[in-house]
Amino acid sequence: MAVKLKRLAVLGSTGSIGRQTLDVVSALPGCFSVTGLAAGNNLDLLSKQVEEFHPKFVSYASRDKSGDTTRFDASGCRFLSLEDMASHPDIDTLVIATSGTAGLGAILAAVKAGKNIALANKESLVAAGEIITTAAGKSGARILPVDSEHSAIFQCLQGEKHYLRRIILTASGGPFRDYTAKQMAGITVAKALAHPSWQMGRKVTIDSATLMNKGLEVIEARWLFSMNIDDITVLIHPESIVHSMVEFTDGSVKAQLSPPDMRLPIQYALAYPERLPNADLPTFDWSRFDDLHFGQPDMDKFPCLRLAIEAGRQGGTYPAALCAADEAAVELFLDGRIGFLDIAPLIEKVLEQHDNVDKPAMEDIISAGARARERVLAMAGGGVK
Amino acid sequence: MAVKLKRLAVLGSTGSIGRQTLDVVSALPGCFSVTGLAAGNNLDLLSKQVEEFHPKFVSYASRDKSGDTTRFDASGCRFLSLEDMASHPDIDTLVIATSGTAGLGAILAAVKAGKNIALANKESLVAAGEIITTAAGKSGARILPVDSEHSAIFQCLQGEKHYLRRIILTASGGPFRDYTAKQMAGITVAKALAHPSWQMGRKVTIDSATLMNKGLEVIEARWLFSMNIDDITVLIHPESIVHSMVEFTDGSVKAQLSPPDMRLPIQYALAYPERLPNADLPTFDWSRFDDLHFGQPDMDKFPCLRLAIEAGRQGGTYPAALCAADEAAVELFLDGRIGFLDIAPLIEKVLEQHDNVDKPAMEDIISAGARARERVLAMAGGGVK
Repeated sequence: MAVKLKRLAVLGSTGSIGRQTLDVVSALPGCFSVTGLAAGNNLDLLSKQVEEFHPKFVSYASRDKSGDTTRFDASGCRFLSLEDMASHPDIDTLVIATSGTAGLGAILAAVKAGKNIALANKESLVAAGEIITTAAGKSGARILPVDSEHSAIFQCLQGEKHYLRRIILTASGGPFRDYTAKQMAGITVAKALAHPSWQMGRKVTIDSATLMNKGLEVIEARWLFSMNIDDITVLIHPESIVHSMVEFTDGSVKAQLSPPDMRLPIQYALAYPERLPNADLPTFDWSRFDDLHFGQPDMDKFPCLRLAIEAGRQGGTYPAALCAADEAAVELFLDGRIGFLDIAPLIEKVLEQHDNVDKPAMEDIISAGARARERVLAMAGGGVK
Repeated sequence: MAVKLKRLAVLGSTGSIGRQTLDVVSALPGCFSVTGLAAGNNLDLLSKQVEEFHPKFVSYASRDKSGDTTRFDASGCRFLSLEDMASHPDIDTLVIATSGTAGLGAILAAVKAGKNIALANKESLVAAGEIITTAAGKSGARILPVDSEHSAIFQCLQGEKHYLRRIILTASGGPFRDYTAKQMAGITVAKALAHPSWQMGRKVTIDSATLMNKGLEVIEARWLFSMNIDDITVLIHPESIVHSMVEFTDGSVKAQLSPPDMRLPIQYALAYPERLPNADLPTFDWSRFDDLHFGQPDMDKFPCLRLAIEAGRQGGTYPAALCAADEAAVELFLDGRIGFLDIAPLIEKVLEQHDNVDKPAMEDIISAGARARERVLAMAGGGVK
């Protein structure tokens, strides 16, 4: 099973997905070379990664403050901007594991350069899905989903994507799936950060608890698989074993299952279209394979899911406003400035006040996001709590 | 989604699978023409089918007794032997829905003629899997499984069959899954014929109740997908919603799901590699999608499963002896001559006495079957009950 050495750049290498990407690279010697590494401000970890993987290119955000673009010169690394790294001819596949809309410019650069893009960043596709997928269609760039759900759908469509009729996106339901209204009111940051099945970054963990994460994934799936929002069904599945399903035109359904571990969808995106044995990945013990539970999402208890689906249905700049409002609201919650149950009403108010732009340009998307963020902060400052 | 009109011959057209095949053909006008029909002794139903589908060729077993090969001449049908029909150049795809080992000659003729074979007959592949698959490899004949489990596996392998590591064959567990030993002793023919999720012929319904059916499917899967017996795991799944799963080299698992209805796997085999919308096929109501249960098979309570897996592991003519012994024992049970719990011990004794032939020729397979059958009947006559 010989694989041509693929040259990777990992954007967001010090975050959860970035670190797990490097774990996969280490577990599969001879398959990938790490040609570029880019991080935000965690320069200590970035330094360790540079020592271990010897990339040609490095990028980091904090240089904007320090002006230091020579920090890694001694390691033989050349500093590149995110955009230059994303479009560099020495790189075959980009892993976009940055969080929020920060990596949008780099994603667009990579798409226009026709790269393979292992996309773990949700917000970019939610906010600018039409622009990104249209550009990818023109350049031939291939977007390989890294989210476990979208990877599942992508895997299920191998060999027969023309027959897709419906996507069934599974959701663990988060840690508060079975909470009463009273319990919901008492949710602390610590409780919200304790996700039952996945180890993830803080923002996405809170989004999982509100089900906003699932709503964003619905919009993401809409762009990745050219589906109507209403042909995407969300199904609660607490075990996070079935990562999603697809229904075909003849009614047959395929599901992808695996123990919950992000390294599998990461590896699948890196190795695509091949599958590589990796002893580090967990596998099912079939002698203990147990029941799988499914149920309906409660849109009243988790209004963020409803808000996201509605924003996706409206289209235009609604999803960009949703994304930015959520990002700001989650920050406020993590900072202890608003309660868990304040997140959805804040986002809902922003969406109610939103002036939509249909077929938006990138400037429209960016300004819709900025305005939504401002509104959340203004409302919170004005005493939401 | 234009499909070239495929010319079908349905061997076993009056049985359960044969009738459902014709239902599929009727539901998809313009996709298939019924060029040949072959039945056993149900000439009344065959006549009706001839009137409705106007085949060019017809075949039936009872002509051996009556010598009447002209019965359908008035309908413009020409009588052909099963073998001649199976290899006729005017036929693209054969549906082999005959039961037992009776259709073996026709299957071999079709395989040698390089046809597409929608195979619903289990016993032929169990008894003569190596001969059939070797011949298919030479002629380019394509064997398209019609069993729901093998169809599920086949569907899951689309686009990535090179990465198969393990097959997980699901089993409803039959109507006696939760029976105590005492209840098992009191099983009547009527109870054994009442399968919880599938409508099937009598022989396969009893085989489902003993789990022999699942054991035969393990051997069938071994040949259809070139797997070792020990890389096939049987998993009990009472709902018959997940029809089987495959595990790939990277640990990722795909499952195929659909409401239990044989018309889907039949249609998939007929339309392959396309999927066709068919309003007659049931689909999931996702707003009511419910829990799925899984468990381990009890080899002590269902020794037929153990016997079949062991016969498959031994290879040679063991599976042929197993098949024939089971066929004879089930007949005895259906005739009220032995009890339900006598089926497995009869088969086990036959296998204990079996003189194996490695790399058997077709004669070896046929004589192993004949001898196994004789032994069952002799033992039963000698007072098994």
